[in-house]
Amino acid sequence: MNIAIVGVGLIGGSIAITLKEKKIATRVIGVDKSEANLKKALQLGLIDEGMTLDDAVKACEVIVLTVPVDAILKLLPGLLDQVTNQVVIDMGSTKERILQAIADHPKRGRVVAAHPMTGTEYSGPEAAIPNLFAGKVMAYVDVMNSDEDAFDTTEMIVDQLDMQATFMNAHEHDVHTAYVSHISHITSFALALTVLEKEKAQGRIFELAGSGFESTVRLAKSSPDMWTPIVMQNRDNVLEVLQEHIKQLQHIYDVIRDEDYEAFHKLIKKSNKIRRILK
Amino acid sequence: MNIAIVGVGLIGGSIAITLKEKKIATRVIGVDKSEANLKKALQLGLIDEGMTLDDAVKACEVIVLTVPVDAILKLLPGLLDQVTNQVVIDMGSTKERILQAIADHPKRGRVVAAHPMTGTEYSGPEAAIPNLFAGKVMAYVDVMNSDEDAFDTTEMIVDQLDMQATFMNAHEHDVHTAYVSHISHITSFALALTVLEKEKAQGRIFELAGSGFESTVRLAKSSPDMWTPIVMQNRDNVLEVLQEHIKQLQHIYDVIRDEDYEAFHKLIKKSNKIRRILK
Repeated sequence: MNIAIVGVGLIGGSIAITLKEKKIATRVIGVDKSEANLKKALQLGLIDEGMTLDDAVKACEVIVLTVPVDAILKLLPGLLDQVTNQVVIDMGSTKERILQAIADHPKRGRVVAAHPMTGTEYSGPEAAIPNLFAGKVMAYVDVMNSDEDAFDTTEMIVDQLDMQATFMNAHEHDVHTAYVSHISHITSFALALTVLEKEKAQGRIFELAGSGFESTVRLAKSSPDMWTPIVMQNRDNVLEVLQEHIKQLQHIYDVIRDEDYEAFHKLIKKSNKIRRILK
Repeated sequence: MNIAIVGVGLIGGSIAITLKEKKIATRVIGVDKSEANLKKALQLGLIDEGMTLDDAVKACEVIVLTVPVDAILKLLPGLLDQVTNQVVIDMGSTKERILQAIADHPKRGRVVAAHPMTGTEYSGPEAAIPNLFAGKVMAYVDVMNSDEDAFDTTEMIVDQLDMQATFMNAHEHDVHTAYVSHISHITSFALALTVLEKEKAQGRIFELAGSGFESTVRLAKSSPDMWTPIVMQNRDNVLEVLQEHIKQLQHIYDVIRDEDYEAFHKLIKKSNKIRRILK
């Protein structure tokens, strides 16, 4: 089976590593608008060959989309026009708009929408690592709209990535990721901006940056080309969470301003319930 | 040399591990208002003996304070009344108020104010780990007010913890920690509250929580008994940073609401400058 990876970055490159390691793919074909990325991916041995998307569709049985979600939205309908019996796996971080855009396409069934809940703050082929997926969750979205054989093929590949499956509809997916992924990134961006601003005025403050700071701010290293389209496509949900988050912060602000430390203690204690979730 | 650790939790217990490992202390004496903690610390082999603070002051040459900052503020003046030539190392996370409280004490020189810029989200003696300090920064505060021999003794111990030293005054310390430590915790508390609130209404959302979420929210597991007094003592600086952080988040909100994604892209790119700091 030939497999095309469209977008040989962190996610695409890391999948390619496993596909080759586990010998799932006869050949791994890389597709990327950046010639430099393709060359790098070849050098790193992530892919066997680079091709245009049109050629890759003809040459492969499975096409995995790991480009930013604006690119998926743009290329997916045209890609489906060329598909006969291939399986297209959409690994984008947002789902509602993308799946709406192909809802009435006669080849809709060939698409399996799946979102691997993993990543790092790095991007590009050199960010690809083995075991990025092991033990993590793969969210399958609206699989009732996928052909059974297309889903089976996808599941076979995902099993090899050693992931746990969960299932939901596109709306649920986009709401939930706004809460457990998108807001974390926005908070990190804002924290980085807050602190960088202060440093400009005062200097030296990073000498004291410890592991707590690093952990809350590391996502601010994330790529703007990846994250702008995610927020664009998930705007309404992101705005809702962000408003709620600002409200919580403002409440904490008020409580500290009013020196109501009993209330502050209670808020921390309540937030400690996150221990139930994070082991 | 006998060394007393006042507060055998994460920081105190981890210091005790090194003091014993490197044979710096003849005996490590534990002081803790919690009998259970003392017992646990003895069982874990962190300390050789438990004592009251009064007895420990008589029995030891060095007294290390690793209790929450409200407890330090309360006990330090009285402790100094009993000190003859001992060294008292204050390891609290805030400095201005504590050092003000002893500014005119005749034994002020016996106190060395130092803040180890490290930690985890866990607390108590069972949270103590070896190497918590290795490679991290020890912030020495207002050392010009410490006796030279007291500082030398402290430095000798800190060297064994394998830490890098930096020096600043109490005001700088409290401003900088507000930016690179206290705000990270408050953001995590608020994020946890935001998401827990939503889960109550909708359930299931944590299935998708990946490593990004974990990293921004893990500090919300931190102890309210430790963090309430920190914020109380550093109120003005914390309010300033928090206000700036809310402003940045509100700006991001406005930009997304107005669908000005070019501006959003620029903000992420600007926040990426944090790469300069976080390796």
